[in-house]
Amino acid sequence: MDSAATALQLQVQDLNARYVQAIDDDRLEAWPDFFAQDGRYRVTTAENVERGLPLGMIYATSRPMLRDRVRSLRDANVYEAQRYRHVIGPPLIAHQEGRAVHAHTSFIVARIMHTGETTLFATGRYHDHVVIDDGKPRFAEKIVILDSRLIDTLLAIPL
Amino acid sequence: MDSAATALQLQVQDLNARYVQAIDDDRLEAWPDFFAQDGRYRVTTAENVERGLPLGMIYATSRPMLRDRVRSLRDANVYEAQRYRHVIGPPLIAHQEGRAVHAHTSFIVARIMHTGETTLFATGRYHDHVVIDDGKPRFAEKIVILDSRLIDTLLAIPL
Amino acid sequence: MDSAATALQLQVQDLNARYVQAIDDDRLEAWPDFFAQDGRYRVTTAENVERGLPLGMIYATSRPMLRDRVRSLRDANVYEAQRYRHVIGPPLIAHQEGRAVHAHTSFIVARIMHTGETTLFATGRYHDHVVIDDGKPRFAEKIVILDSRLIDTLLAIPL
Repeated sequence: MDSAATALQLQVQDLNARYVQAIDDDRLEAWPDFFAQDGRYRVTTAENVERGLPLGMIYATSRPMLRDRVRSLRDANVYEAQRYRHVIGPPLIAHQEGRAVHAHTSFIVARIMHTGETTLFATGRYHDHVVIDDGKPRFAEKIVILDSRLIDTLLAIPL
Repeated sequence: MDSAATALQLQVQDLNARYVQAIDDDRLEAWPDFFAQDGRYRVTTAENVERGLPLGMIYATSRPMLRDRVRSLRDANVYEAQRYRHVIGPPLIAHQEGRAVHAHTSFIVARIMHTGETTLFATGRYHDHVVIDDGKPRFAEKIVILDSRLIDTLLAIPL
Repeated sequence: MDSAATALQLQVQDLNARYVQAIDDDRLEAWPDFFAQDGRYRVTTAENVERGLPLGMIYATSRPMLRDRVRSLRDANVYEAQRYRHVIGPPLIAHQEGRAVHAHTSFIVARIMHTGETTLFATGRYHDHVVIDDGKPRFAEKIVILDSRLIDTLLAIPL
């Protein structure tokens, strides 16, 4: 692994580490800025991906749409009742085109209720397309592929 | 940490990241290729290691034996009913001999049932001996040391 | 990310990987040596941090105090009944002053009882101040910020 590949891998790792930290810190207003202006964010399941099912759960196709989403979450006031903790594994670089890169990162998310009860909430993998946008690495696309099909209650939550 | 040590650490990390991705993606046929031709794969428990007990659960001592194992799993058709998600921590280089390296990596595995139910399935540590074989890093030995003594039901599953 | 930043990030990652390995291996006597001579170790909750509450749960403000703590744990003989497994995410460098660095690292801890039962025990984040002390990276301060408010039973356990 040469030093350019090392730097790239750490750059993707750092982007996801900052991304999940913002979510876990409830700094949702910072969430859209991890995406490019026309960045896409999608949540789906491994089962749907394997079946080639159409992308049923597109959440947003631009940064303004992500901002709207955050505002809705704040208005609905549902987010504050619990806390999340993501732990991510090392990124795998799938392929690279110039300064853009496609990478896969496994994650596990714990949910901590206001009572203190902690449960294993979600597991899965990020399929990320990372580009340099406005001088910083950002997601041109982030696909969150959940291992479980039980995602109804997840719909409200950035993952 | 110099750049050679950095490169080595990332190489081991990358190997394990690809290894667990293959398992989590149910690409079991790719699993033996992460091992050297005469690579050894063993699953044991922390308790057995501490007691110095003989290596009771050797699964395979060569790549062909690992291939047999995968075929058995496919024939038994037990593997498809659930899904796994490994998250691994950073590798610790225990020692290095030329281009061979011994490293330790903590892991946690979630199991996702067909119903969607997700549980904490296994935790432990990989003790890996990584060599360059056929031009690629592969496991000369991979010892999976499980924290729990309850491993009966694990026997079928590559970890 | 230049090579100096890469080296720094891996140095912090390596320190925490060795730190959690010592705990998970029950090598508690090695635990104080991860701290500088006057290193501080504190466990608190995210809720307390957000409320700006005074630092109620300071465990130790020096390496000798950490050693005392380990002796108490050994005398009380409570630690051996279970096993822990930490998995840490990548470190985020918050800021750097010369050779000292402040970094954040997410963690998840599983507890494995003597019976083999495994549960999700704790999640949270390390806020570390890492310095070079006696030629090695060590913690000048390690703040363990737990996500859950239910920490009564944690008090005995190094995290």
